[in-house]
Amino acid sequence: MPDNAGTSIPDIVIGRLPLYLRALRRLRQEDKQVTSSHELGQRLDISSAQIRKDLSHFGGFGKQGTGYQIDFLIEKLQVVLKINQEWMVVVIGAGNLGSAISHYRGFQDRGFRIAHLFDVNPAVIGQRIGDFVVRPISAMSETIRAENIKIAMLAVPAEHAQSVADQLVEAGVEAILNYAPININVPAKVQIQYIDPVTHLQRMTYYLDG
Amino acid sequence: MPDNAGTSIPDIVIGRLPLYLRALRRLRQEDKQVTSSHELGQRLDISSAQIRKDLSHFGGFGKQGTGYQIDFLIEKLQVVLKINQEWMVVVIGAGNLGSAISHYRGFQDRGFRIAHLFDVNPAVIGQRIGDFVVRPISAMSETIRAENIKIAMLAVPAEHAQSVADQLVEAGVEAILNYAPININVPAKVQIQYIDPVTHLQRMTYYLDG
Repeated sequence: MPDNAGTSIPDIVIGRLPLYLRALRRLRQEDKQVTSSHELGQRLDISSAQIRKDLSHFGGFGKQGTGYQIDFLIEKLQVVLKINQEWMVVVIGAGNLGSAISHYRGFQDRGFRIAHLFDVNPAVIGQRIGDFVVRPISAMSETIRAENIKIAMLAVPAEHAQSVADQLVEAGVEAILNYAPININVPAKVQIQYIDPVTHLQRMTYYLDG
Repeated sequence: MPDNAGTSIPDIVIGRLPLYLRALRRLRQEDKQVTSSHELGQRLDISSAQIRKDLSHFGGFGKQGTGYQIDFLIEKLQVVLKINQEWMVVVIGAGNLGSAISHYRGFQDRGFRIAHLFDVNPAVIGQRIGDFVVRPISAMSETIRAENIKIAMLAVPAEHAQSVADQLVEAGVEAILNYAPININVPAKVQIQYIDPVTHLQRMTYYLDG
């Protein structure tokens, strides 16, 4: 759970903004210039009233009856989410998952750039994976401090996730996206989000006929 | 959003059950036999009252003052989530991401088994990836029907995600885990969940000092 102190906007609202942004970028790709909360809502399966209410926290960004200027709304949401700058990110773990993350082309034009890929395995260190040469995890903390990196993606085995996260926090990382299938504990000031496909699958099977 | 009609239990509660299950399995790995809502809550950063309330939807599973028998609670949650059986899953897209998914060892003992890996690219079809030989997407629908497969993981480029999802639904798939960074529309009876690391990163940068 993100530490929500100091802001009056519910975290669940913040969590929807990246979805709005993604849909808006898609509309722009389709050469559209104006959209509505109705159109956005249909694409996202979110009610238009919810979308208007969410955006009203930040001033609304649209005029009654004329819809939203897509470029304008994209720009505003990028400012709200602080991705009108590029954030450096480190990836820890150069196995299949870390390798797939490192090859993924979808970070850069959405606010993030992978700066380094670290692993503990001597057989992998020094190998080229995509655009990166895998660096030793022993150099991780110093690199993060020296380059003032605030964000890490954690793709290590579950049994190492907590200790690596502790090192990341100690080195100054303030946001961790954890792919290891285990909950990790971080100080309240550190943001943490999880990606575990199995939890999503299990959430869906509840609704299926067994 | 999962279609919640026909059940009185909020989807957000269902969404937390896989997290409880994951934490319980971890406790069992640590050779613990009994836990408490307090201990679970600390590990998950969820209040113990919330955990007790969530579990009370299903009967509670614990006695006042004695905590939860871990094995018993695991078994009960698996029944609730319908993963006391093994679900066959297909993976569509054999690029870096589909390849990483296919190599991932964490599905099988949590209720899921990848049955097939499909791709559209002739250069990839027939190649071995992990335990799989990549099959042509032209065989996808027939295979899904013949084997009565209900779950798919979608790891294709964004521009193909909707059309592949339409084919999956037409073939009988009832739950899709979509890794493509785009919202897709499915009938209300079909479950859909998303994995898009960038939306998680953007949700966190909101809280960072820009």
